[in-house]
Amino acid sequence: MDQSNNMSNTPQTVITDTTHSPYALLRPVPIAAVTLNDTFWESRRRVNREVMIPAQFQLCEETGRIDNLRKAAGLMPGTFEGRFFNDSDVYKLLEAASWSLTEQPDPELDARMDSIIEIIAAAQQPNGYLNSYFMGERAAQRWTNFDLHEMYCAGHLFQAAAAHYRCTDKTTLLNIAIRLADHICATFGPEEQGKRFGVDGHPEVEMGLVELYRITGDRKYLEQTEYFIDVRGSGRLGRPFDHQTPEYHQDNKPFREMDRLYGHSVRAVYLNCGAADLYAETGEQALLTALKRMWTSMVTRQMYAHGGLGSRWENEGFGTDYELPNRHAHAETCASVANMMWNWRMLSIEPDARYADVMELALYNSVLSGVSLDGSAYFYQNPLDDDGAHRRERWFTTACCPANIARTLAELPGYVYSTSENAIWVHLYVANTAQIALSDSLSVALEQQTDYPWSGDVQIQVQTAGEFALHLRVPGWCDAGWTLELNGEALETTLTPDHYLRISRVWQADDTIRLHLPMPAEWIRSHPLVIENQGRAALRRGPLLYCIEGVDNSDVAIDYLHLSDAEHFTSEYVPDLLGGLVVLKGNATLVDTEVIWNHALYQPVNMLAVTTDQKAVAITMIPYFAWANRAPSPMQIWLRCEI
Amino acid sequence: MDQSNNMSNTPQTVITDTTHSPYALLRPVPIAAVTLNDTFWESRRRVNREVMIPAQFQLCEETGRIDNLRKAAGLMPGTFEGRFFNDSDVYKLLEAASWSLTEQPDPELDARMDSIIEIIAAAQQPNGYLNSYFMGERAAQRWTNFDLHEMYCAGHLFQAAAAHYRCTDKTTLLNIAIRLADHICATFGPEEQGKRFGVDGHPEVEMGLVELYRITGDRKYLEQTEYFIDVRGSGRLGRPFDHQTPEYHQDNKPFREMDRLYGHSVRAVYLNCGAADLYAETGEQALLTALKRMWTSMVTRQMYAHGGLGSRWENEGFGTDYELPNRHAHAETCASVANMMWNWRMLSIEPDARYADVMELALYNSVLSGVSLDGSAYFYQNPLDDDGAHRRERWFTTACCPANIARTLAELPGYVYSTSENAIWVHLYVANTAQIALSDSLSVALEQQTDYPWSGDVQIQVQTAGEFALHLRVPGWCDAGWTLELNGEALETTLTPDHYLRISRVWQADDTIRLHLPMPAEWIRSHPLVIENQGRAALRRGPLLYCIEGVDNSDVAIDYLHLSDAEHFTSEYVPDLLGGLVVLKGNATLVDTEVIWNHALYQPVNMLAVTTDQKAVAITMIPYFAWANRAPSPMQIWLRCEI
Repeated sequence: MDQSNNMSNTPQTVITDTTHSPYALLRPVPIAAVTLNDTFWESRRRVNREVMIPAQFQLCEETGRIDNLRKAAGLMPGTFEGRFFNDSDVYKLLEAASWSLTEQPDPELDARMDSIIEIIAAAQQPNGYLNSYFMGERAAQRWTNFDLHEMYCAGHLFQAAAAHYRCTDKTTLLNIAIRLADHICATFGPEEQGKRFGVDGHPEVEMGLVELYRITGDRKYLEQTEYFIDVRGSGRLGRPFDHQTPEYHQDNKPFREMDRLYGHSVRAVYLNCGAADLYAETGEQALLTALKRMWTSMVTRQMYAHGGLGSRWENEGFGTDYELPNRHAHAETCASVANMMWNWRMLSIEPDARYADVMELALYNSVLSGVSLDGSAYFYQNPLDDDGAHRRERWFTTACCPANIARTLAELPGYVYSTSENAIWVHLYVANTAQIALSDSLSVALEQQTDYPWSGDVQIQVQTAGEFALHLRVPGWCDAGWTLELNGEALETTLTPDHYLRISRVWQADDTIRLHLPMPAEWIRSHPLVIENQGRAALRRGPLLYCIEGVDNSDVAIDYLHLSDAEHFTSEYVPDLLGGLVVLKGNATLVDTEVIWNHALYQPVNMLAVTTDQKAVAITMIPYFAWANRAPSPMQIWLRCEI
Repeated sequence: MDQSNNMSNTPQTVITDTTHSPYALLRPVPIAAVTLNDTFWESRRRVNREVMIPAQFQLCEETGRIDNLRKAAGLMPGTFEGRFFNDSDVYKLLEAASWSLTEQPDPELDARMDSIIEIIAAAQQPNGYLNSYFMGERAAQRWTNFDLHEMYCAGHLFQAAAAHYRCTDKTTLLNIAIRLADHICATFGPEEQGKRFGVDGHPEVEMGLVELYRITGDRKYLEQTEYFIDVRGSGRLGRPFDHQTPEYHQDNKPFREMDRLYGHSVRAVYLNCGAADLYAETGEQALLTALKRMWTSMVTRQMYAHGGLGSRWENEGFGTDYELPNRHAHAETCASVANMMWNWRMLSIEPDARYADVMELALYNSVLSGVSLDGSAYFYQNPLDDDGAHRRERWFTTACCPANIARTLAELPGYVYSTSENAIWVHLYVANTAQIALSDSLSVALEQQTDYPWSGDVQIQVQTAGEFALHLRVPGWCDAGWTLELNGEALETTLTPDHYLRISRVWQADDTIRLHLPMPAEWIRSHPLVIENQGRAALRRGPLLYCIEGVDNSDVAIDYLHLSDAEHFTSEYVPDLLGGLVVLKGNATLVDTEVIWNHALYQPVNMLAVTTDQKAVAITMIPYFAWANRAPSPMQIWLRCEI
């Protein structure tokens, strides 16, 4: 075991550390090595730093989440308040705050984190156990009900500890995590080793344990992850009512036999993140086969057009194939974050732009919709159709989503690039400068300039001379027509089967690549088995899915819209609308059906009036992520459409 | 108080006793006065008597539901098992069994009920309290959490006691009910009367208390019902997670301000049944106004085409207006029974065939679909579209539905007729003989002959001479073309505004009325805001809604069906299919979209192939109630349709 060795190295600010993972083809580029300087994301990251993260600390205080830990530590009287998983919100926020320190030093934030970590340390039990819900009378119930999120909270602690260690070089939270991880490893495992059966009721611990393995080099954390994957399918999770079936818990069959995503969407996808992390270390083919089978099921039958996951409210999860209702979509913000996390891991294992496509789709649409433009309020569910009633909230009783968005924004620079042997991979297009180490002797400075997502024109200046390959992702939304120039000259490059443009050469300093991705407004349709979308189409432009919102279309009863002249939508950048965005404008027909229906719900066909009151209207559409930032009004993505 | 007087009368076997209710315009006809002799319902009632009710007694034993009462009575050791509302299943079954005794004497069943009633009597506490869940350690928690269904169980006991008393003339169960009702009345009420605040977490007690008032004449039961209606809107029910909002509990606003059906559908409609019962006694206009407002909301925006209620699984209840998903419909069998019960009460208050229409719609479609043809299995949810996975089950952990169907079938003859001053009202068409008392001096014998629901031809022979009016309902599904004959001669009769044909005359014995209701197969559409049904139509014939089931259409991929030639559906009675039924046959077009889509979920419109593989197919449709009685296969009510 090389724990001491690893931990004595200066930690790198990588989100997931596949640097030494034998079965990951891509290696991470540290967050700290990439400086975003665009207007789209950097403005949101500033809101994250200045509004979201401070408010979330405040809310964790106000709602007793940090007090629960103080009480567990004996630092204040009283008993646990709130829901049993509330510790996890504190840990996830510590993770977000840690990553945000890579943007700029913040001694005050650093000190605030230290003070909370001291409380957590004091709350930890002598045997390493840590969960502020299971104190006092409840101490006797520790580890008796795997659906009470003890492992979920532990997993978030492990992820937070990895982030805190990597971003601050401090081991204070990491040592707490290691003590708890050791306690878990000592407690749960094969009965022939004298351990107890254990299964993670809400997956999360798996990812955390692999990251602890990567930091410490201690294989027992990896073996523990493998055990938690292996035990799935026991059917021991679940109860016969309240929709908490074994499927809900991904406990209906052995993991390696999973053929689709089952049950609670965040649980399902977090579990897959952990399994992908495990594969990156062990290379077990059955894991990858199952993961790819589930991924194919997701993108061909189970995913919303905005990258969201989860069709049903009663299980916060998946329905049957093609069950993707729009208005009553669940599409939890956390599930979209999970979708990004899973695809990031798949991409690292096996570079394929399709994984980056899903990551980008979720990021720009169903993750970003999860927070208001001013950072003051969040969506838990992200429907694709609304009557104006669904509004973001400042906080939730179950407040998993806010810190999930915060950590995603804080770690965003880490998703832009990867490296492989003498190669740089560009996954996301965003204006930035980067310093990317390819070997001990070659560190490449890059500057990326682009107005993405408003424009598909990207310029990358290679500022360091040297021989290496550059892989540029051609997004799935760009069917054709992309062009590439090197120093102003057209460059013939064939697309790899994995949809990257590979440019391998001896670079001169200041060589400039220009990638042009045509970005017209484009109508898409759903597979006809998505019943609600039959006869409907949606408009996308580049990575952004668009919607119509009532507030921009006061003359239009959105529910009665029939789209005509669908080809001729024009795009226009409007700088003073919702922080600046490209709107799409076109024409449609409105049918006044109340006249016909006279408030009946069902009518014989032969009683329906044949003539209808129609009028032409102009409609304006905005990117989906920006909806519900003004006065409440209806919103729709999938419009009735004759095309 | 005239309790002794009332109870000394021979009880009448009426479902709800509005005989003396000052604000009910219709009076009930005893179940025992109507003898069904048709093939449609009487065969189902035989299955109810011979299969369903005996099996439900057996299952209540096997699952510990009766043992729970034995344990509470100290008759056996052990503690409560199962869900906290399980007593109610025993009571509802006693109610069903009581009504079934009106069909034919059954000393064995009578004795079985007596033995269970003895157990219940022994389980009742000295103060009248009765609930087998709140015994032992839980005794201290009695009446502390109104969502734990103590009042719900009490209400079912009261309804069972009324039925048992009316059908057997025994007061054994009634005396238990009265003691519990007295305990509730003494405990809950206005604080200025020295009582405690109380609200019914799952409405049901309201109906039961009014029936106890009607039996005993003791107004305190009526006043208690009024109190339970008055306290609604306190917002004291509900918790901030698990979808248990105040709306879920119909506790979001005062009852008289309710403007639509909110929350859990069975709770909402049971509450309205209780409020309608209260109105029948008090005539308070604000109650009726609220009830009619909710009814209008239901039939114009909240009800499925099969009479089912409840769009969402997470609250087993209502969604927003026009939110009526088909495959993931909840449409609980109990909610359809509740819909019948509510409309029966509205009809009694205010004769209007529209109430009877909804009652009939639910009865023939979403109530009847709740049980298999052989009586061995039940649906909890009644979707309008299925992939073949939704199957009836022998029993449920939450087993509210089976006995609800059983009591409905057992009491069915009671829904056929009502009376008013010197008038007989015919609500349902079903072959039967009846002896209907109109006054102390006039009891009219009737014989109704019809093949309803397969035919709309009805013959009613008046077998008693006398002067009175006959009101014949013209169902809402019969738009036009009905004809009426008296003794073979056309009879000119205008329809009342309430859609009954009123024939007032001095009848001669053996006068024969023939009513012809044309019953063509007819396509219906939904209001366009029912998004899933846009571009779709459903086929109905008479009171029956039809569906296509895969097992009859092995060549047809139902999800890809486009209906063409929709006018020319022919009807055919098939005696050996599913117990004998009218099938409808026609033509349609099948589009092989897998060819086009190649397993993609979303595609740009301009990438879609224009040519499609189409073929003509013949399709066969069966009544919805009969689906899922053969091998599992897909089912659909709302078909894609060009018309």
